[in-house]
Amino acid sequence: MSTEPNSPPSLQGQLAILGEAVPLELDCGARLGPFNMGYQTYGTLNAARSNAVLICHALTGDQHVASENPVTHKPGWWTLLVGPGLPIDTDRYFVICSNVLGGCMGTTGPRDIDPATGKAYGLTFPVITIGDMVRAQAMLLDHLGIEKLFCAIGGSMGGMQVLQWASAYPERVFAAVPIACAARHSAQNIAFHEVGRQAIMADPDWCAGDYLAQGRNPRAGLAVARMAAHITYLSEQALHRKFGRNLQDRPRIAYGFEAEFQVESYLRHQGSTFVDRFDANSYLYITRAMDYFDLAEAHGGSLAAAFEGTRTRFCIASFTSDWLFPTSENRKIVHALNAVAANVSFVEIDSDKGHDAFLLDEPEFHATLTGFLSAAWDARQRTA
Amino acid sequence: MSTEPNSPPSLQGQLAILGEAVPLELDCGARLGPFNMGYQTYGTLNAARSNAVLICHALTGDQHVASENPVTHKPGWWTLLVGPGLPIDTDRYFVICSNVLGGCMGTTGPRDIDPATGKAYGLTFPVITIGDMVRAQAMLLDHLGIEKLFCAIGGSMGGMQVLQWASAYPERVFAAVPIACAARHSAQNIAFHEVGRQAIMADPDWCAGDYLAQGRNPRAGLAVARMAAHITYLSEQALHRKFGRNLQDRPRIAYGFEAEFQVESYLRHQGSTFVDRFDANSYLYITRAMDYFDLAEAHGGSLAAAFEGTRTRFCIASFTSDWLFPTSENRKIVHALNAVAANVSFVEIDSDKGHDAFLLDEPEFHATLTGFLSAAWDARQRTA
Repeated sequence: MSTEPNSPPSLQGQLAILGEAVPLELDCGARLGPFNMGYQTYGTLNAARSNAVLICHALTGDQHVASENPVTHKPGWWTLLVGPGLPIDTDRYFVICSNVLGGCMGTTGPRDIDPATGKAYGLTFPVITIGDMVRAQAMLLDHLGIEKLFCAIGGSMGGMQVLQWASAYPERVFAAVPIACAARHSAQNIAFHEVGRQAIMADPDWCAGDYLAQGRNPRAGLAVARMAAHITYLSEQALHRKFGRNLQDRPRIAYGFEAEFQVESYLRHQGSTFVDRFDANSYLYITRAMDYFDLAEAHGGSLAAAFEGTRTRFCIASFTSDWLFPTSENRKIVHALNAVAANVSFVEIDSDKGHDAFLLDEPEFHATLTGFLSAAWDARQRTA
Repeated sequence: MSTEPNSPPSLQGQLAILGEAVPLELDCGARLGPFNMGYQTYGTLNAARSNAVLICHALTGDQHVASENPVTHKPGWWTLLVGPGLPIDTDRYFVICSNVLGGCMGTTGPRDIDPATGKAYGLTFPVITIGDMVRAQAMLLDHLGIEKLFCAIGGSMGGMQVLQWASAYPERVFAAVPIACAARHSAQNIAFHEVGRQAIMADPDWCAGDYLAQGRNPRAGLAVARMAAHITYLSEQALHRKFGRNLQDRPRIAYGFEAEFQVESYLRHQGSTFVDRFDANSYLYITRAMDYFDLAEAHGGSLAAAFEGTRTRFCIASFTSDWLFPTSENRKIVHALNAVAANVSFVEIDSDKGHDAFLLDEPEFHATLTGFLSAAWDARQRTA
């Protein structure tokens, strides 16, 4: 069985081949191995191997968190937070970020070659869960010789992974920072994901998932999915502030179906640039994993039970204008942690930038992270 | 030039042929005439012709407000409100509801035959506005011999038409009830409409708008548009209450891309039934008309100026969980009316049903309407 990486090396940064001896057991019952894991690291692992920070990325994120993205040639997606002297200080911490299982940036996903058939997986790729993503990350840490994380941190779907980490591997996570997330995906959020999936699957170029073999690409459907999702990442206020009803390159309305309003032009741009960097089937698989996420359900309906006996230090952050993962959902996590007497800080950041605020310049949020991580690091030193 | 109705008679109920002598002047500069107007009436016009109530329907509504819909064979869309002894009492009022210009239920729209070419208009149909819809309705009232409405009432896009009526024809509207609407469409709402339009236009069966001539129908794209829009009509609470994370016809998740969650199944059903009753190009045109709506912009940027000197009595209603046309947008209308010392009542109804609440069983809303209309009717009698 070949262990050749399937994705072009340029996408991958660092690459681990995992599951060769013992495959990854997926929640759906399938086994996966060997598989590739694309990841990036920043900073240096200390001698005690105690300073590792795992950053978990969101739905359409990737491992290029603090360095140029090799596909888009844009800066990393969290350069505001990760770097020397920044809240996630790479002078102090060894930062790891891996592309999620099912992704399309170096970690094995539906567009990669199934070694059993020699053809792209497409829809034969097994359906994955947040739990599977985290088990794969745990295998990467084993591979890197890191027994315990100083911190697992991430926003949105990244936050779901952080919660899963803290629940599944409590002894491997000293501190956990789930940001702008939920312990289970809501009906409304499942509904928005379903619209996106239907848009992809309605595109004849999707070819029932077999588009790669047929030399096609459901660009139009994926762009519509991205547009619908993108609205949910912003707040009404942010859209109003950015665009209002301003017209695009014209003094008055033209009575047509071109992008006349700036907000239309912006959305179309979001859709068309996204399809250049993302795989449509990966979008189906990763949205599905988020839909399935329900940490309480896996613990007899009790979210508190998911964290019973935890010694992890938690910092939970939400944003006032985030309507995708509103404060109420984040607060449920806090309440569950309180119920098991966990060490938990909670902050709701006043922001009008919507869900995307966790990616943006929010000084209060950044100051909160700096404070929490510094205090946790001091505590970690004392326990070392 | 033929004045034959283009749509099958079964869709139309009553039909007026308008604009034969003098065509309708559209905001875009085009002229339309003759054109058909499908409408329904309920109750009897009194001798003084003073008891006419015009109901303005929403984006995907039609004239079948209180009687069986000939296409879906479902009851009218406002049977809770319109009928003998109901808030809009057909024992007292003569109720008129017409299909909007650009629609697909008897009033001329893009799927009808352009008498100039003998072919379906498709995208050659002129782009229309809320103002155009209302001017066409005014022509219908002229045709019916009704000089002044007792009341114009409607929710959502219907409310936009009511505002336009009160502003453009203040002497023709004794009372106006705009419900769950806005005096201008927000950037977020334009964005959601644009997603729907892009979904339609991405469907190869749309054929650049020429699908009728080519014997095709962009069903998949229109269904996705409807699904995305439908989420915005409901509240997160309503979706949670109705569906939560309940699975559809299965005891546990199946790890696949079928509709596993009830909310997915529900959305797919909404999409697939909608395409049986609605025309994709009509959807483009009518959403565009809503996007263009900005009553203040047409009055030098002052919403109050749109109602200067009005003697119309207004009742404005919003719903707490409506995030498509939130109370804040409705309140802006109230403030503008206050600024010109208009007679205005405002009520925010506590409901968790989202935007669709205006169509549903909301006793406090219905009681408010009954009270307002009765008082206005008494006042109307005194002025008669």
